Amino acid sequence: MISNTKLKYLASFKQAKYRAESNVFVVEGEKIVRETLLSDLEVEALCATADWLGANNQLWHGRVNPDKVYEVSDEELSRISLQKAPNKVWLLAVQPQALSADPATNGFVLALDRIQDPGNMGTILRIADWCGIRHIVCTADTVDYLNPKVIQASMGSFLRVGVHYGDLEEYLAQSKTHGKTVYGAVLGGDNVFETPLNDNAVLVIGNESKGISSQLCELVDKKIAIPNWGGTCESLNASVATGIFCAEFRRRKQ
Amino acid sequence: MISNTKLKYLASFKQAKYRAESNVFVVEGEKIVRETLLSDLEVEALCATADWLGANNQLWHGRVNPDKVYEVSDEELSRISLQKAPNKVWLLAVQPQALSADPATNGFVLALDRIQDPGNMGTILRIADWCGIRHIVCTADTVDYLNPKVIQASMGSFLRVGVHYGDLEEYLAQSKTHGKTVYGAVLGGDNVFETPLNDNAVLVIGNESKGISSQLCELVDKKIAIPNWGGTCESLNASVATGIFCAEFRRRKQ
Repeated sequence: MISNTKLKYLASFKQAKYRAESNVFVVEGEKIVRETLLSDLEVEALCATADWLGANNQLWHGRVNPDKVYEVSDEELSRISLQKAPNKVWLLAVQPQALSADPATNGFVLALDRIQDPGNMGTILRIADWCGIRHIVCTADTVDYLNPKVIQASMGSFLRVGVHYGDLEEYLAQSKTHGKTVYGAVLGGDNVFETPLNDNAVLVIGNESKGISSQLCELVDKKIAIPNWGGTCESLNASVATGIFCAEFRRRKQ
Repeated sequence: MISNTKLKYLASFKQAKYRAESNVFVVEGEKIVRETLLSDLEVEALCATADWLGANNQLWHGRVNPDKVYEVSDEELSRISLQKAPNKVWLLAVQPQALSADPATNGFVLALDRIQDPGNMGTILRIADWCGIRHIVCTADTVDYLNPKVIQASMGSFLRVGVHYGDLEEYLAQSKTHGKTVYGAVLGGDNVFETPLNDNAVLVIGNESKGISSQLCELVDKKIAIPNWGGTCESLNASVATGIFCAEFRRRKQ
């Protein structure tokens, strides 16, 4: 059971400004809520249908403070949900502390310059998770990885990849002093399939329409591109290009 | 100038059932409308702001019947648009005739088994266009490639790739008799990077959550997969996986 007042309060978190003020974010649906409950994120509220609560007792009992668990009807769920088709369970979690990126970390790092589309961001988190890439460093004006659309598109991968926001110029400059190679995905760059690739590297992916900023481009050691085999299409989607680049780095490392 | 009656009539095409009844589809935004006007598709209506019509006179004048060109204000445009941020121009085009797929065609063909997400479908059209893949064969219940969300995500690539709907089982069976190899993207399949690839082939991509149906799986000659390097993520997004597979086929063909 849930009071109308509580329901209205939780529904307010549909709005980004209230999530930001209260330092929380929303996770929805069986799969992603399950993974969130198995993580060490702090839970602020858990709303679910009676059958979900019954079937998943082992998952939430003892994990979430009973005062923060609410049984809701499908109709009540639809009032707090951001999804077109709410799926049994809704969770409000406390935002984890912001991470700072260490340019001395060895291995392959992905860097995002102003990626704006939440779907792309979520898909890129999933690519990083799939490829075993532990860190993504982003410009401060890249879309928030705790945006609900990113969370849903990432399918739980937001829990397993460290996402860092900050001054990307400084991060790249310092990474280079630590011996990392900075690659940039640039239309017209060298064919990635014929370029020697160093796995101790940062790969910079630029904004969906504007690409990599000129300031960051100056810090790129090697511009790489996917050959335009068809010759009729201007560009690939940013997350698809990221997937092809990351797979190529991983394939070569094998 | 546009009458209120006409505006209401055009606004009705926001609904899929009216588009289907009248055999039309909607294209929006400067880039995609430009490409559509340069194609040979039949235009049923063109609505645009005064400045767009002035600046693009060469593009539409003589190409579109003057009775079908309407100058609209931004406010009028937003009434007929399906976009959150309408971009100067809106076009209604007549659906091209359905194509039938010829299993005897040489070369690489992409086959989609019940892809549902319009964003994925549009992104896959863009991948095919980029990779020079001329044909995509789809099960009848794959999302319509003339769905407005597909059109927008495809960024004009819907004009350059032949999309065929029909009995995929029959198409695969016949392709095999014409000497094509049928590959299937299947979790747990052989590592695509270590598998010999024949370019005279059909690559089957399955539904986002259910994968390839068991009937179609029986027609697959070779199951292939992208290695799960990270080991923590269940799957890649369907369009990202398609991009990685297609790039690998193209890379090997070079």
